Amino acid sequence: MGDEISTLMNNNKNKVILLRLRNNKTVRGNLQDFDIHMNLTLDDAEDISDNKTTKLGTILLRGDNILAVSLPDEES
Amino acid sequence: MGDEISTLMNNNKNKVILLRLRNNKTVRGNLQDFDIHMNLTLDDAEDISDNKTTKLGTILLRGDNILAVSLPDEES
Amino acid sequence: MGDEISTLMNNNKNKVILLRLRNNKTVRGNLQDFDIHMNLTLDDAEDISDNKTTKLGTILLRGDNILAVSLPDEES
Amino acid sequence: MGDEISTLMNNNKNKVILLRLRNNKTVRGNLQDFDIHMNLTLDDAEDISDNKTTKLGTILLRGDNILAVSLPDEES
Amino acid sequence: MGDEISTLMNNNKNKVILLRLRNNKTVRGNLQDFDIHMNLTLDDAEDISDNKTTKLGTILLRGDNILAVSLPDEES
Amino acid sequence: MGDEISTLMNNNKNKVILLRLRNNKTVRGNLQDFDIHMNLTLDDAEDISDNKTTKLGTILLRGDNILAVSLPDEES
Amino acid sequence: MGDEISTLMNNNKNKVILLRLRNNKTVRGNLQDFDIHMNLTLDDAEDISDNKTTKLGTILLRGDNILAVSLPDEES
Repeated sequence: MGDEISTLMNNNKNKVILLRLRNNKTVRGNLQDFDIHMNLTLDDAEDISDNKTTKLGTILLRGDNILAVSLPDEES
Repeated sequence: MGDEISTLMNNNKNKVILLRLRNNKTVRGNLQDFDIHMNLTLDDAEDISDNKTTKLGTILLRGDNILAVSLPDEES
Repeated sequence: MGDEISTLMNNNKNKVILLRLRNNKTVRGNLQDFDIHMNLTLDDAEDISDNKTTKLGTILLRGDNILAVSLPDEES
Repeated sequence: MGDEISTLMNNNKNKVILLRLRNNKTVRGNLQDFDIHMNLTLDDAEDISDNKTTKLGTILLRGDNILAVSLPDEES
Repeated sequence: MGDEISTLMNNNKNKVILLRLRNNKTVRGNLQDFDIHMNLTLDDAEDISDNKTTKLGTILLRGDNILAVSLPDEES
Repeated sequence: MGDEISTLMNNNKNKVILLRLRNNKTVRGNLQDFDIHMNLTLDDAEDISDNKTTKLGTILLRGDNILAVSLPDEES
Repeated sequence: MGDEISTLMNNNKNKVILLRLRNNKTVRGNLQDFDIHMNLTLDDAEDISDNKTTKLGTILLRGDNILAVSLPDEES
């Protein structure tokens, strides 16, 4: 992960992000930490795929499963 | 990502690019940043697969999911 | 695995964690050790997929099969 | 990409090449640049799979999607 | 493979271990050697998948096919 | 690719080799060059899968698609 | 490939080994050479999958297609 992208992720710590995974699942949670492999830890994580919500608690998600991360608007 | 390709990507910052993904999805957005792994951030991203448009907002997309990036013409 | 994530994993040694695997299996066990590839060893491991429990004993699980690790709450 | 192969690719800059992709698609375009990962940029790219032609414009294609590159004859 | 995990594997040399593979096969054998990629050699190996036992003799198994290794209890 | 294998490949330059690919295709051609990733270039390449022959001309084939390379006998 | 495993492979040069591949094929041949990626060359190779024998001659097989290598008994 390059520096610019690392900065963007840093700006979103303690904010709620949305993860779209390669297995088509969608996970939402409060970003705590991340590393250069895009491994990241979330608090209050929830699997919100298929119009159902399953509580996952605190999770460590491996970066290589991620398709994309939706970030909250800078202003909001 | 080699230097020539990095330069091309740099020339397309703040322009709208089209991403064709390995999962057959197509995503469009305004290129903000990228790194050597082709991880990239988009503003105003939209999933435009299957003749539907779904707003994604600001996203960070992992480079290893990308098949190809369509770039706007240099002149336009 | 970055330092912050390594610290989080260290804090969960000798605690029961839940592993969601890329093959859709779920494994539960007592975290003993891990390395930077997220290879980890569990005591008293159980496969708890599909509402069945199969005892696995002490296992070494390769990190590249992991989707996510659910960690116990810090306070509990 | 080794030096001999890099030289061959260099000799084909500004020539039309044909890409056979791992997803069974075929793409044709004018080779502009490439790097050691076989990431390459094409002008006037077209998807010519399945007896249909779809214009793609200028694209950056990730090398890890490539099966083979057909190069024009040296003499022609 | 980190040092702690390497130590655990070392403690299980000349013991019978059970390998669960990514292709859903299960292999049992006497651990002889391993390397940092989790490539390992087994004596008296047997494929015990699907309630059948097929003798494999001495095998070298590539680590990237492994899902998990079940280790005998420390005490036993 | 280790030195011994590199030597073997070098001995087969300008000879016709047969490539069995991971996608079950079979390609035949005159070996021109190769690199340590087993990327290789062929002249007069032909796809000879499924009892059909399709001319491919000069191709650069990415090594990670190769299952095995059949080499002509040393003596012949 | 670690040193111990390399030694084992060295001890099996010029012996007949059996390769189980990730695509479920089985190949038998006389081990000539190998490198640290487990790329290996075989003489008199045969595909013996599905109770049929197809002669392959001298082949170079990419290591990343290998599931396991069955080695002849040390004594025999």
